[in-house]
Amino acid sequence: AQLSHLYHFSKVFYLCVHAISGNTDGAVARESTERNCSSTPPYLPSTAVNTSLQLEELRVQMRGMNISAYIIPATDAHLSEYIAPRDARLAFMTGFTGSAGTAVVTLNKAALWTDSRYWVQAERQMDCNWELEKDVSISSVAQWLISEVPKGDEIGFDPFLFSLSESHVSSPPVSLRTWQEKVEHIRTQMGDSPYKPTGLLLSALDETACKCFLCLFLGLFNMRGNDIPYNPFFYSYTLLTMDEICKPIISELKVYLNASCEGALCVQLKGYDTILDHLKNYVTRPGVKVWIGTEYTNYALYEVITPQDKLLTSSYSPVLTTKAVKDETEQQILRDAHVRDAVAVIQFLMWLEKTVPEGNQTELTAAEYVDKCRRWKDSRGPSFGTISASGPNAALAHYSPSKETNRRLTVDEMYLVDSGGQYLDGTTDITRTVHWGKPTEMQKEAFTRVLMGNIEISRTIFPSGTRGVNMEMLGRRALWEVGLNYGHGTGHGVGNYFGVHEWPVGFQSNNIPFRAGMFTSIEPGYYKENDFGIRIEDVAVVVPVQTKYGNNYLTFDTVSLVPYDRKLIDTSLLSSEQLHFLNKYYETIRSMVGPELDNQGLREEKDWMLRNTEPFAEIGSSASVSSSSLTLIALAVALLHNIV
Amino acid sequence: AQLSHLYHFSKVFYLCVHAISGNTDGAVARESTERNCSSTPPYLPSTAVNTSLQLEELRVQMRGMNISAYIIPATDAHLSEYIAPRDARLAFMTGFTGSAGTAVVTLNKAALWTDSRYWVQAERQMDCNWELEKDVSISSVAQWLISEVPKGDEIGFDPFLFSLSESHVSSPPVSLRTWQEKVEHIRTQMGDSPYKPTGLLLSALDETACKCFLCLFLGLFNMRGNDIPYNPFFYSYTLLTMDEICKPIISELKVYLNASCEGALCVQLKGYDTILDHLKNYVTRPGVKVWIGTEYTNYALYEVITPQDKLLTSSYSPVLTTKAVKDETEQQILRDAHVRDAVAVIQFLMWLEKTVPEGNQTELTAAEYVDKCRRWKDSRGPSFGTISASGPNAALAHYSPSKETNRRLTVDEMYLVDSGGQYLDGTTDITRTVHWGKPTEMQKEAFTRVLMGNIEISRTIFPSGTRGVNMEMLGRRALWEVGLNYGHGTGHGVGNYFGVHEWPVGFQSNNIPFRAGMFTSIEPGYYKENDFGIRIEDVAVVVPVQTKYGNNYLTFDTVSLVPYDRKLIDTSLLSSEQLHFLNKYYETIRSMVGPELDNQGLREEKDWMLRNTEPFAEIGSSASVSSSSLTLIALAVALLHNIV
Repeated sequence: AQLSHLYHFSKVFYLCVHAISGNTDGAVARESTERNCSSTPPYLPSTAVNTSLQLEELRVQMRGMNISAYIIPATDAHLSEYIAPRDARLAFMTGFTGSAGTAVVTLNKAALWTDSRYWVQAERQMDCNWELEKDVSISSVAQWLISEVPKGDEIGFDPFLFSLSESHVSSPPVSLRTWQEKVEHIRTQMGDSPYKPTGLLLSALDETACKCFLCLFLGLFNMRGNDIPYNPFFYSYTLLTMDEICKPIISELKVYLNASCEGALCVQLKGYDTILDHLKNYVTRPGVKVWIGTEYTNYALYEVITPQDKLLTSSYSPVLTTKAVKDETEQQILRDAHVRDAVAVIQFLMWLEKTVPEGNQTELTAAEYVDKCRRWKDSRGPSFGTISASGPNAALAHYSPSKETNRRLTVDEMYLVDSGGQYLDGTTDITRTVHWGKPTEMQKEAFTRVLMGNIEISRTIFPSGTRGVNMEMLGRRALWEVGLNYGHGTGHGVGNYFGVHEWPVGFQSNNIPFRAGMFTSIEPGYYKENDFGIRIEDVAVVVPVQTKYGNNYLTFDTVSLVPYDRKLIDTSLLSSEQLHFLNKYYETIRSMVGPELDNQGLREEKDWMLRNTEPFAEIGSSASVSSSSLTLIALAVALLHNIV
Repeated sequence: AQLSHLYHFSKVFYLCVHAISGNTDGAVARESTERNCSSTPPYLPSTAVNTSLQLEELRVQMRGMNISAYIIPATDAHLSEYIAPRDARLAFMTGFTGSAGTAVVTLNKAALWTDSRYWVQAERQMDCNWELEKDVSISSVAQWLISEVPKGDEIGFDPFLFSLSESHVSSPPVSLRTWQEKVEHIRTQMGDSPYKPTGLLLSALDETACKCFLCLFLGLFNMRGNDIPYNPFFYSYTLLTMDEICKPIISELKVYLNASCEGALCVQLKGYDTILDHLKNYVTRPGVKVWIGTEYTNYALYEVITPQDKLLTSSYSPVLTTKAVKDETEQQILRDAHVRDAVAVIQFLMWLEKTVPEGNQTELTAAEYVDKCRRWKDSRGPSFGTISASGPNAALAHYSPSKETNRRLTVDEMYLVDSGGQYLDGTTDITRTVHWGKPTEMQKEAFTRVLMGNIEISRTIFPSGTRGVNMEMLGRRALWEVGLNYGHGTGHGVGNYFGVHEWPVGFQSNNIPFRAGMFTSIEPGYYKENDFGIRIEDVAVVVPVQTKYGNNYLTFDTVSLVPYDRKLIDTSLLSSEQLHFLNKYYETIRSMVGPELDNQGLREEKDWMLRNTEPFAEIGSSASVSSSSLTLIALAVALLHNIV
C-alpha cells in the first residue's frame, strides 16, 4: 500500500458509522483497573467495552466497498475539540472516550493511536480487539498502514473529518562519523520515508560542500572552495539517488578531482549550468520521486519537478539535520579551538586596555589586531567580517568599520567587538562589549540585563528535543522587565571549519529541536540608537545533565572562555543563581585557559585573566554569612570591653 | 496590478544585473552621517552611493520587456545568508550593503524594505533615489506594489532568487463592539487583502455561533444552541460575502428566526446539508475568491473550491482573530463572573475540608457539590465535565469520575478538581489541587514547582505581540530543573459564556500573538502515574504594564481568585520575586472576594478565605531584616548584662 492514497482523493469512501452506545460487558473479578490481553483468558476490567459487533459491521461494509483499511479520527466535520455524542465515532468503535486519538481498522486488525495523557484510560476502556499505539506521529500511522495493507489496496476515510493542515514528519538527528556512514544514513532515511523518494536534491551550499568536506578527510577528494568570503564553500548542487549516489554538479570551480568510481559511491560531475536539464531529465524517468528541503531550494528548480507526485518536500533536507549533531571527536576539537581562540581574544582585550588611553587606536586598527592575534594561533582567517564598533556605531547591530565611518576608540565610549576565526579544527564566534572609562548607570543596567539573558539561557535545563525558539525569551526577559529589547535573533548553529552560521541549529522559529552535541551561539544584546550598542555572545554545546528525578535532560556548556567587563556588571541585579553561574564560569575559564596561557608563556595575559575572573561575592553564600557572623562577634567583643 | 503575478510564473523575466562596484560620490561637508532628502538641496553623507546610472539602465531593460516593477532580493540562487560580491544585486542597485532587504523598482520610483537593525545603515548608504520602507511584512511590499503598479501590468523577478517557503500575512486583532462593526471590520480586512477574496467561508462552530451570539445581544436573532454539551453552539456553516453578508446555513436546529432583511445585512438561511451545493454554485461565478481558515475547514469543502485561484487560505479566519480580543465591557463582566465563581469554589473547598474526614465523600459527590455551589451563583451549568480526581485517578490529566472508577476521598490522598461554570456574563475554568492530611516531600516539591511555573508565566512582562508558545516554557522550567514535566499544553483562550477552550488564543504553537484584552488559562501540572496528579489553573487577562524604559509592554492579570493549598507550598523553593507575587495575589483575593463574601453573608467562608490568604514571610524583606536586628539588639543587651 502507498500512503499517497491517504492524500489522494480521486476515489473517496464515505462510511456512515452511526454512533450508538456500546454495551458494556466482559468484566471479570475486579483486580486491576487495566486490561491484560496477554493473560489466558485475557483479563478485561469492568470499564472495557466489547467492540466485536461494531468491528464486524464495519468490516462487512469495507469488504463490500473493496477497501482494506479505514481511518477513524476523534473529531467531527467541523474539526471541533468537543463533539456531540452522535459524532463520537471513535468512542463508538473503540470504547475509548478520550478527546484525542485516531483509530485504523483493517480486515483483521484494529489499532488506536493516542498520546500519553490517555494511555491508562485506553487500557481501561478498550477490549482486546484493539492494539494501543503510543507513537502519535503521522509517520507511525503511515508505517503501520504500510506494513498491514498490501500494495495497491485502497484505504478509506471520510474527507469531512480531516483538516487541511499538515503535520511534519521528522526524525531526530544521529551522530555519525564517516561520510560513507552519513550517506548510508541519509539513504536509510530515504528508504524509511513512507513517501519513498528516489532522489534527494541538495541546494544549500553547506549541504553539498559538507559531503565534500567529509570526502576531504578521507582523502577521496578535496572540494572546499573560496567562492564566498569567510566561508569554505563553493557553488554546486547535488542530486543524491538511491542507486547512483553523490552527483555533485560543480560550478565553474576547476575540478581537480579524479575519484575512483565504485557503483553507488561513484561521484559524477556535471557543469554547474546543466542542473536544470539534468533534473528535468531525471524526473522524466518512471517511478522517481525527488526530496527537497524547501528552505534552500529555489523556485526554478522546484518548478521542473512535475507532476506533483514526483515531489517530496520538508523544511530542511536530511543532510542538514544529520550534520547538526557533532560527534565526540568533533566536539573535542571544537572545544580545543575555543581555548586557543580565548587566548587570542584575551591578548586583544588586554592590548586595547593598554593602548586605547594613548589615543591611537580606531575601529579599523582594532579589527586588524584581533585578526592578527588569531593568526598567531594558526587561524586561517576571520570567520566573518569583524564588527569593531565604538559608541553610536555599535548601535547598528551588523556594522562593519570603513574608512568613512571609522571612529577613534576612547575611554568615553563603549566598544563592541564581534569576531571569529576559521581554524582547521573549528569555527569560532564571540562578542564582548567593554568600557575603558566610566559607564553611565543606564549602560551598566543594560549590560547587566543582557548578561542576565545570556546566563539564563546558558544555565537552563530542558528535555532533549526542546526547540530553541521556545527558550529564547529567557535571553530577553530581564530586558523586557524594564521595557528594553533587541531586534535580532538570539543564536545560530556554528560549524567545524565551516559556516559561522550553520543552520538549522539555533533559536529561530524554523530551527530544529536541540539534541546533545549541537553547537549554538547565545547572543542577546541591546542597542540605543545614536548612543551605544551591547551584545554578549558565547558559543555553547548542548550536553546531557543529571537531574533529581528525570532522564534525558540537557543544558548548555559554554565553550567560549573570555571574561566579561567587570566594570559593566551591576551584581545587585543578579539573582543568587545567576551570580553562582557566573562564578562557576570564571572558574572554568581559569582552569581551561590558564594552562594554555602558561604554555604560551603569556604571563601578563595570565595576570589579566586572573584579575578579570575574580569571583564575585555571592549573596547568602557561606562567605557572606561568615562575614556577618564576624560583625556580630566583633560587636559582642566590643560590648564586653565596653568600647561601645 | 494584482499580486498574484508575483506567484504566477507563466511569464518569467530574467534580468541580468551585473554586480560591479558602485561609484561613491555626492558627499557634502561632513555634518551628519545620515542622508536628508527633504532638505534643499538634499543632503548626502560621503557614505551614500549614487545609484542613478544603475536605475536608469534597469528601467531601460524593464521598458524593453514591458514590465512595470522589478523585485530584487538580497540573496543568491542558493538562498544563502552570506553571498559573493558578484551576487550582491541588492547592494549594487541600492548602495545598501546590509544582509537583509528587498528592493522594488518601478519606472519612476524605487523603494527598499529592511528591518530595524539596518535602518541607520540604509540612511547612510542610500541616495535620494530610494525610499526606505520600515514595515518588512510581505503585505507591506504587496500594498506598495498595488498602489504603484497599474492593474494588469506585469511585475518581474528572477525565480532563482525566491524560496518556496511562504510567509504569513497577518494583522493585529482589533476590539470592536457591535456585530455590525465586527462584520464591517471583517469586510474591511477582505477588501484590504492583496488577494481580494470575495467570500469568507466559516466552519468552526464558534465562528458562526459567534456572530449569532452578538446578534442575540442586539435582539436581532437568538441562535445559541445546545448541540454540544457544555457549549452554547449549534451546527452551521456561514458564507460571508462582500455584498450579501451573513448567510448562516443552519443545521437541523428549529429556526425561530425572522430577521428583517436589509441588503448587505440580510441573513439567508439554508439547510445544513446544502452547504456543498451552495459553495459549488458560488465558486462557478466569475471573479469570486473564497477565503478559508485551514485549521477548521474540512477537505470536502476545500475540494470544491476550484480552480486554485478562487481559493485564499490562512491558518485562522479573521473572525476568530477578531473575536480573541475582549473589549473593556466584556473584560469587566468576565472579571465579575470570576469573583462570583471564586465564592463558589471557596464554599466548595471549605465544605470538602469539613466533610472529607467524616469519610462520606467521593469524586462523584464532590463533582455534584461544586456544580451546586455554582448554580447558587446563577451558573447555567458547568462549562465542561468536572474533573474530580483523587489519588492515582488524578494522574490521568483528563479523567472524569464514573461509577466504575469513583474513589472515596480521604485525608491520605491528594485531590484535584478542574471545573468551570457557564454564567450569562462569562465562562470560568479553574483547577485546584489539595491534600487534607500529610503530603509527602515529593508531593510538596512537585506542587511548589507547578506553582512556580504558574507564577513565572503570570508575572512575566513581554512586548505586545509575543506568542504564547515562546513563553510557555516558563511554566515548565522549575519542573525541568529536577527532571519533571507534563504532557499537555499550558493554556487556552476562554470565552464569554462561550467555549471554555476558545482558540486561537493560548500557548500552543498555532496560537496567535498575545494582545491586551485576551483571556487565557495558565495551567501547568505534574502527574505521577498510579500515584497522584497536580494541576494549578487560573484564568488571566492580558493587560498593559508600565515599564522603566519602554512602551507597549504587557503582562497577565489573574482573574481567578481562589487561594492555593498552603500545606503543599514549600516556600524555601520560591524566589523572593515569586513569594512577593504570591502575597500580592492573596491581597487581591482579599480585596476582591472579601466584599462579595460579606454581601452574601458567608462569614465562615470569609474566615476560611482570610486564613488561607495569610501573607507568607518574604526573605530579605523589611520584616525579616528587622527581626534579625532584634536578635542583634537582644544579644547586645544580654552581653551588656553579662547574661551570656
